[in-house]
Amino acid sequence: MQNFNFCSPTYFEFGKDAELKVAELIKKFGGSKVLLHYGTSSIKKSGLYDRVTAALKDGGIDFVEIGGVQPNPIDTLVYEGIELCRREKVDFVLAVGGGSAIDSSKAIAAGTVYDGDFWDFYEGKWIEKALPVGTILTIAAAGSEGSLNSVITQTSSKCKRGASGECIRPVFSILNPALTQTLPPYHTAAGSTDIMVHIHERYFSNTEEVEVTDRLCEGLLKTLISQTPRVIADPNDYEARANIMWAGMVAHNNLCGVGREQDWASHGMEHELSAFFDAIHGAGLAVINPAWMKFVSKKNPHKFVQWAQRVWEVATVDEAIAKYEAFLKSIGMPSSITEFGAKESDIPMLAKHIGLTDEATFGGYVKLNVSDVEEIYRLAL
Amino acid sequence: MQNFNFCSPTYFEFGKDAELKVAELIKKFGGSKVLLHYGTSSIKKSGLYDRVTAALKDGGIDFVEIGGVQPNPIDTLVYEGIELCRREKVDFVLAVGGGSAIDSSKAIAAGTVYDGDFWDFYEGKWIEKALPVGTILTIAAAGSEGSLNSVITQTSSKCKRGASGECIRPVFSILNPALTQTLPPYHTAAGSTDIMVHIHERYFSNTEEVEVTDRLCEGLLKTLISQTPRVIADPNDYEARANIMWAGMVAHNNLCGVGREQDWASHGMEHELSAFFDAIHGAGLAVINPAWMKFVSKKNPHKFVQWAQRVWEVATVDEAIAKYEAFLKSIGMPSSITEFGAKESDIPMLAKHIGLTDEATFGGYVKLNVSDVEEIYRLAL
Repeated sequence: MQNFNFCSPTYFEFGKDAELKVAELIKKFGGSKVLLHYGTSSIKKSGLYDRVTAALKDGGIDFVEIGGVQPNPIDTLVYEGIELCRREKVDFVLAVGGGSAIDSSKAIAAGTVYDGDFWDFYEGKWIEKALPVGTILTIAAAGSEGSLNSVITQTSSKCKRGASGECIRPVFSILNPALTQTLPPYHTAAGSTDIMVHIHERYFSNTEEVEVTDRLCEGLLKTLISQTPRVIADPNDYEARANIMWAGMVAHNNLCGVGREQDWASHGMEHELSAFFDAIHGAGLAVINPAWMKFVSKKNPHKFVQWAQRVWEVATVDEAIAKYEAFLKSIGMPSSITEFGAKESDIPMLAKHIGLTDEATFGGYVKLNVSDVEEIYRLAL
Repeated sequence: MQNFNFCSPTYFEFGKDAELKVAELIKKFGGSKVLLHYGTSSIKKSGLYDRVTAALKDGGIDFVEIGGVQPNPIDTLVYEGIELCRREKVDFVLAVGGGSAIDSSKAIAAGTVYDGDFWDFYEGKWIEKALPVGTILTIAAAGSEGSLNSVITQTSSKCKRGASGECIRPVFSILNPALTQTLPPYHTAAGSTDIMVHIHERYFSNTEEVEVTDRLCEGLLKTLISQTPRVIADPNDYEARANIMWAGMVAHNNLCGVGREQDWASHGMEHELSAFFDAIHGAGLAVINPAWMKFVSKKNPHKFVQWAQRVWEVATVDEAIAKYEAFLKSIGMPSSITEFGAKESDIPMLAKHIGLTDEATFGGYVKLNVSDVEEIYRLAL
């Protein structure tokens, strides 16, 4: 096990009607003037928008708002949010939505109190200061509700990049599994896939002697494998959604990823897919992650043998990957990048856009170069 | 799953030489005048005391100290600590040791800033205010390094009672697995047993639909089952100790216990054993917990069936309990309360001292009355 540090100070309010505590929590964490930041019209249709704004008004919390966050949130809306926060002297950002609304909120929170261009953080600068961020989560997927990360796409370059900083970790996150019941099955399945791949990115590691985090990862994977088909069969299955929602947080606050080298090649490859094609992040991962497995497991089978036996309870790695693919198919996920409109001829552009060369530097478990990545994209055709 | 809230803000510095960061961490969390609080002479023999005091001096941290914390820490030393902290205007308490030194430090931290008798907290008053506490952990066992709990024994009454409060959760905990290498095998095994029972107290629950926390609990149990024999065979096995140490924290910061009714009868019964007899807490649990299982599994087998299959990979509950007992024996744990000097004739006094009546109110998974508890103590003879 490698040396590490770990801190996950987010306060989680979990369960039915948890969103009614939003004003109380904002006050607890020092907010008085709030930016309410959310996505598409779904929270208005579901009535959540009305409940949250009523709770804010009842709690005496003054707020301004910007909606319209899209999947794969973009820099232009972040700039708009920063300008509004500065003008209105906002001191707290409340995200209502999934990973996109939360990531966009984190970017606004950091950018508002930063003198330069917020995109600096997405070019690699560590975020040192931000307004506090709170969340009301509506999709179990990104894990952004408990993480210190944010991913934003720069519209001009189509670059989808991540930024990090302890100060953008939400001070509180409200997790009411019932809020995810209105999600379409495709988005629900994509969410579970994203959670599973967050675990895989940590699990597939060359760091030896990490039994405790291996076992935690395996337990989360088994949870997703058993619970996701339940919510696909019955979107109103609160209990299955509750288990998935807590798994989604634990999968990405890094409790299960400490002390080990991690991979993250699948996320890197998927980011290009959803930047250039019409792929929801989790659905893109459902195609890329098994393809990545087929390629790297031949070069470094070690950890895959344990994964096959413990998670899928089969004897061979190929059987396990086949079971994983069958599982993804059974919950309605795509199996080819062509389903997003990508063609074989797009592959060199996708691989190049990651910024790869002939030197094998991409990913942790097996270091990949540009031709390896092209090969993985081809396996995902 | 029940509604819950969860927050675990402790900053963990984990790995080799982590204790060298102590001065930096104390400053980060606002400490300038420190009470160094520790146990017996073992940290002086091992050289840890010298390393920590040198690090404090090098870091310009002023400190006073009280050693002598015993297993099952007592109120009289807490009163002494409170008086010293007030006199010396201490603003930070640093525990160096295991659960006893940490629990005693938490009591001192709360008592120093409280107008009344600190024992009020151990009579049930929630702790609202305390000096910040940091820890350097030397035993993987109690989980106190990441928990909001403290257990102290009142010498006059032999009452061993717990107190809780968010403010006594350590602001930082330094976990260097190498520091546990000097522990005798018996204490190492007792530590692992304590961790396993922290998981069992949460796992055995009547709350349905808690698959995610069940799976996390099972993963931790499997980790302890595989790693503990390694450190018994080789006390210097850093890697196995590292896995156990992180499992000990995760087992007790309540990440795996959220959203469910918990039990805690075994801990309650063991507290009496170590208050009246010469039992180390974990060793006492090694006797009480299997006896509790034999009694309650007959009345409510439900969760035991899953535990047998998933953790011990056997078909029946009796086989699983037998495997658990054999495991505890294999790591050197006792199997009868007589090994601590308790006799059958002591049982009524032990059961009575818990404060039980004919009404079945004790524990969560099966509600026990005084005669049930006597029967469990008899099963532990």
